[in-house]
Amino acid sequence: MTDQEIEKSDLGEVETQFFTFGDKQHPFVFQTGETLAHVTLAYETYGTLNADRSNAILLFHALSGSQHAAGINRSIPGVAPLWNEDLHLGWWDDFIGPDKALDTNQYFIICANYVGGCYGSSGPTSINPDTRKPFARSFPTVMFSDIVNSQVHLLDHLGIAKLHAVVGGSLGGLCATNFAVRYPARVDTVISIASAVEISIQQRITNYEQICAIEEDKHFNGGHYYGQKHPDRGLALARMISHKTFISLDMMADRARSEVVRPEEDRDKWYWLSHPVESYLRNQGLKFVKRFDANTYLRIIDAWQRYNLLTDTGKATLEEVFSACRHQHHLVFTITRDACFSPEQQEQQCRVLRKARVPFQHITVHSDKGHDSFLLEPELFTPHIAYFLRED
Amino acid sequence: MTDQEIEKSDLGEVETQFFTFGDKQHPFVFQTGETLAHVTLAYETYGTLNADRSNAILLFHALSGSQHAAGINRSIPGVAPLWNEDLHLGWWDDFIGPDKALDTNQYFIICANYVGGCYGSSGPTSINPDTRKPFARSFPTVMFSDIVNSQVHLLDHLGIAKLHAVVGGSLGGLCATNFAVRYPARVDTVISIASAVEISIQQRITNYEQICAIEEDKHFNGGHYYGQKHPDRGLALARMISHKTFISLDMMADRARSEVVRPEEDRDKWYWLSHPVESYLRNQGLKFVKRFDANTYLRIIDAWQRYNLLTDTGKATLEEVFSACRHQHHLVFTITRDACFSPEQQEQQCRVLRKARVPFQHITVHSDKGHDSFLLEPELFTPHIAYFLRED
Repeated sequence: MTDQEIEKSDLGEVETQFFTFGDKQHPFVFQTGETLAHVTLAYETYGTLNADRSNAILLFHALSGSQHAAGINRSIPGVAPLWNEDLHLGWWDDFIGPDKALDTNQYFIICANYVGGCYGSSGPTSINPDTRKPFARSFPTVMFSDIVNSQVHLLDHLGIAKLHAVVGGSLGGLCATNFAVRYPARVDTVISIASAVEISIQQRITNYEQICAIEEDKHFNGGHYYGQKHPDRGLALARMISHKTFISLDMMADRARSEVVRPEEDRDKWYWLSHPVESYLRNQGLKFVKRFDANTYLRIIDAWQRYNLLTDTGKATLEEVFSACRHQHHLVFTITRDACFSPEQQEQQCRVLRKARVPFQHITVHSDKGHDSFLLEPELFTPHIAYFLRED
Repeated sequence: MTDQEIEKSDLGEVETQFFTFGDKQHPFVFQTGETLAHVTLAYETYGTLNADRSNAILLFHALSGSQHAAGINRSIPGVAPLWNEDLHLGWWDDFIGPDKALDTNQYFIICANYVGGCYGSSGPTSINPDTRKPFARSFPTVMFSDIVNSQVHLLDHLGIAKLHAVVGGSLGGLCATNFAVRYPARVDTVISIASAVEISIQQRITNYEQICAIEEDKHFNGGHYYGQKHPDRGLALARMISHKTFISLDMMADRARSEVVRPEEDRDKWYWLSHPVESYLRNQGLKFVKRFDANTYLRIIDAWQRYNLLTDTGKATLEEVFSACRHQHHLVFTITRDACFSPEQQEQQCRVLRKARVPFQHITVHSDKGHDSFLLEPELFTPHIAYFLRED
């Protein structure tokens, strides 16, 4: 991302804010029962909260995203060196701003980094006040309900009793749905893009491969690698494994249609890269490790493996889970050729909504790009999102 | 495989034989120009060669297979401890024997371990006579033409000028096709099961992930791990990555429908296995490393990455490559829901055969099992194979 490209953002420079809550008497209790006395959330907001605080939209980011959804943010306190220039332009900048899908002339948009994250929220890289060292492996197990609960604290802090909408794509959609079923009184409008109500076997396998790739790295050291070499090769391999599910094979072949570039890191390798697509994937992996933390990656993948709305709500069936949502309306997007969250998963999502008698619309957008279409092709999503948000 | 199950084989006990060829003046020259003074092939035969030596069928094994295709073989000299009881029954025992797909009453079936293999043929585990240590990383780069050329030496040794047929599934099909286009005068009948004439982008990516998984293992040591700890975790991860392409997700879910078993090897792991499918895959991986060598695995995957019939033949198009085969007839099998060699790959294979005016039949078998159907469901393949072999 060059500076010239960054200049294009309608929102200009934005800043991450921090909200810390809890104390020893009132710690944050994770779903597993583990506790933290203090939790910090890094978050950004765009647009203006109206007088009756009724125009807020809570946006959840995806696996490797951040609170920085729109505008330009060149620096976040405490997040160097991960916060590199690839991240300076918000990850949904094309979707957030005046007259965009999430219209900052009308709405107040909030996006927070997950608890467990590495972009300013409490996570494995944070200092444990008891030991004065990073939590690393000892950071509590994170579940999607913990992500949602911590952000409900943020909403309370901002004085927002009821949202105009929750929105999320991919893992962000999993969060949006968790919010919708667990805090039904706090939202009427739910937008879930290329997501699901259950993890698929395919996802479980791909996730497990990635966990193994990181755990097998000789520098992982059970998660205690801060101040030493990081498990960069394992994390790069994990990213390669996942990246192929994010974009279509055609798009990958297109992007890779240049020469084979052998990275400096690979000079002592047995295998000599022999095809542009290998070199493309390898470089995606190596680029990723510069901006992400392996412990956070594992925490969020682990949460994904445990995603279970039945456990989260104590209900026996998904139909029961969603029966709390009959006053809501849900917008469900499918992306054709999505190899990460398959169209079958949204079909299941809609079957469940129908059985539970939750009003919904289901839109399929046709894209050559695969799952990442929801980050790359605002024109496919903006009309329906904008219309759906106005509908009330 | 229990002893009771093994008793079922119609062929009874069989033995691996060894054929060594070459000397310092007449070394075996690999496609890259590298040489070995002596090459040994481990092979087995079933049935009887007829008087005019016209009833021989050369069968090629798949990635992790061996020369032991049928009958019972409890021990192969020099291959302990890899030769464990999972391997005692031949991998295609259901397809080879009296009145089976490859009928030992009529045909003389030959199957040899690939050069580069770890079941008795010259490979990375073999002792380099110059250094008296295993070749390890220094074993020559293996290409599919090398596999085929070395087996042509074996045919010459056996006095077989022309085969009745070449047969192979998966990577064995890649070998059969390489043989057919490079030695067209030596065979008229070609059976290619769940295979291709070109590597797909999907395969290239899955292979590259596996290469990285093995290379990143802290015990890999550039391939020089004999006499030390082996890169078992990397090889196990590689096998997990490939295994999910061999069987359908439904079949995996079925097989995994038992409890979550946490292997002893994982007691110090960060991640706690949370689903039967993870534990199933993990155990597949751990089982595999007991019977396979990582250097051989890399060599064969590397050969697969380089599979290119244009380079192998010096021709400009696949149509030209196959124009040498107009006197042959090819039988091409597709397995529905094959996630390793996709139905699109056999469609391409048949388009090429049609354009090159090579007579062929294309049969799709419908299976819930995925790619491994060709190992598991003899009833789907036997009628056509038997008929096609008689047809002449």
